Amino acid sequence: MKTHRHPTSNQWAAICKRPAADLAQLNTPVSEILRGVLQRGDAALTDFTQTFDGVKLDRFEVSPAEIKAAGATLPTDLKRAIVSAMDNIDAFHRSQVERPSVTEPLSGVRCWRRSVAIERVGLYIPGGTAPLFSTVLMLAVPARVAGCKEVILCTPPRKDGSIDPAILYAADRTGVTRVFKLGGAQAIGALAFGTDSIPRVDKIFGPGNAYVTVAKQLVSAQGIAIDLPAGPSELLILADETAEPAFIAADLLSQAEHGRDSQVVLVITNEAILPQIAQEIDRQIKTLPRLDMAAQSMLASHIVILPTLQQAMEFVNVYAPEHLIL
Amino acid sequence: MKTHRHPTSNQWAAICKRPAADLAQLNTPVSEILRGVLQRGDAALTDFTQTFDGVKLDRFEVSPAEIKAAGATLPTDLKRAIVSAMDNIDAFHRSQVERPSVTEPLSGVRCWRRSVAIERVGLYIPGGTAPLFSTVLMLAVPARVAGCKEVILCTPPRKDGSIDPAILYAADRTGVTRVFKLGGAQAIGALAFGTDSIPRVDKIFGPGNAYVTVAKQLVSAQGIAIDLPAGPSELLILADETAEPAFIAADLLSQAEHGRDSQVVLVITNEAILPQIAQEIDRQIKTLPRLDMAAQSMLASHIVILPTLQQAMEFVNVYAPEHLIL
Repeated sequence: MKTHRHPTSNQWAAICKRPAADLAQLNTPVSEILRGVLQRGDAALTDFTQTFDGVKLDRFEVSPAEIKAAGATLPTDLKRAIVSAMDNIDAFHRSQVERPSVTEPLSGVRCWRRSVAIERVGLYIPGGTAPLFSTVLMLAVPARVAGCKEVILCTPPRKDGSIDPAILYAADRTGVTRVFKLGGAQAIGALAFGTDSIPRVDKIFGPGNAYVTVAKQLVSAQGIAIDLPAGPSELLILADETAEPAFIAADLLSQAEHGRDSQVVLVITNEAILPQIAQEIDRQIKTLPRLDMAAQSMLASHIVILPTLQQAMEFVNVYAPEHLIL
Repeated sequence: MKTHRHPTSNQWAAICKRPAADLAQLNTPVSEILRGVLQRGDAALTDFTQTFDGVKLDRFEVSPAEIKAAGATLPTDLKRAIVSAMDNIDAFHRSQVERPSVTEPLSGVRCWRRSVAIERVGLYIPGGTAPLFSTVLMLAVPARVAGCKEVILCTPPRKDGSIDPAILYAADRTGVTRVFKLGGAQAIGALAFGTDSIPRVDKIFGPGNAYVTVAKQLVSAQGIAIDLPAGPSELLILADETAEPAFIAADLLSQAEHGRDSQVVLVITNEAILPQIAQEIDRQIKTLPRLDMAAQSMLASHIVILPTLQQAMEFVNVYAPEHLIL
């Protein structure tokens, strides 16, 4: 990690600068994939899946039998954890359902805002290095609470043509309508344009790699709604002298292992505990299954030492991280 | 207007198709303008303003004296109407200020969503054929209610270097922090990147022509937030046999005169009143100051006759207009 000791506020912008992922070079290959899906439909999806996922599929849709089998193979404690997380996410989103507030600015003129659920939404769930069943929960539960009529999920198949059982189990429990074995830019194209197998959706949600991000940007310029272009994951920890070094190390590493390009920042007002944090990182990182990813993103990350908590909070506001732990 | 009598539901998609504005051809010229602003700052702004607005400006910022003069030249009844509209918009948005709702999914774990105002926002207000002081109200009032610290407004100068007084008056009354005489893609570039004169903002709001729309899309791919890529304005009127032909004609024309590319659709269950509506359109259109714009967009618009109100409502849902009048 790069250590910055008492940087002045005009040095902050340089520290806050994210590594610029130059996605422009992907515009051409991704456009070609999208055009293929638009013009050749399912035939293009079969070809791209063979090329990028290394498997030739006869059908893209996951069958009820596969979903049932997924539930049977999953350990009971993992299933219990998924249901518990689902219930918590459900409670959180239910408390946010909008109750329209009617105002009458002029006599007889009643105004209110009413939220109406999007009828058919598409969720993209990454597979590959980390099958994110948590993302299934975070997207499908609010869709259900909002009242979306159809929830279509796409996730890339593994080389044997199967899907991670935890993703299938989470999709089944959260009431996802249909699940398709389809990943990458071709999945975004299928959801945006529709094919014989895959229904066209009104809005696409979910994170993905650079190809998926560029595909979402390109289809959004053609009138398909997307949630947002997701970048690399970020975490900032603001710690004072009361913080526990072992916890700080664990929290930093939990985000660092998301991917090689994860951004991890520690802002600290008391540098006395830094050696202990470094020790803890060295000790804990060795236990990680994704050691090399974590190590690589830790190398690119920052420690910012600031003299007062007030300055530390100002820095946090300027950095504006995706995730913040105090 | 093109009349469609009892179209079947598989013909609806063709009627609902918006004329595809091919904006891709503007990518190159707009990118060049943005690059100019990024590299040469104020000097580029001066050049582009001279080229596109036909005026050489020594300073872009509107002075307090100009704002005061605008208030003095404006008719009292217009000022009163602006303040009245402002108060109504304010009441509407105040009723929507979010009161956080705290849930406790697990004992000791308290969760809530908190909305925090964006610190510095940029508003783009079109000038040209229709100086939209209403847009000033619709953007600046919610910014004030939300608690934005700085509200920066850009609007293109007229050939004499002045700004429409109603825009200045509305900006002053709604508490806009600074107003700049700057339009087109160069204004979007200035708000996105900042120059010596124009502060960089966190998010850009507001409608504009095709250059402005493309500039907003291009800067949004570089990490600057935008509201949405605004397309041509739309209105759909759903009328049954109780509707008043003169009112329908007036409402259709009010949107048609927005621009040559405005989309106007009339969905009607009782075709008996169509001749009266046509008569009213012919009579009223002659009185419009923007007659040729209205006539042109009326030509491209649709009348859809459907046998039942249920089918008419289904059609409205498929069309999904920007504005709907029942």
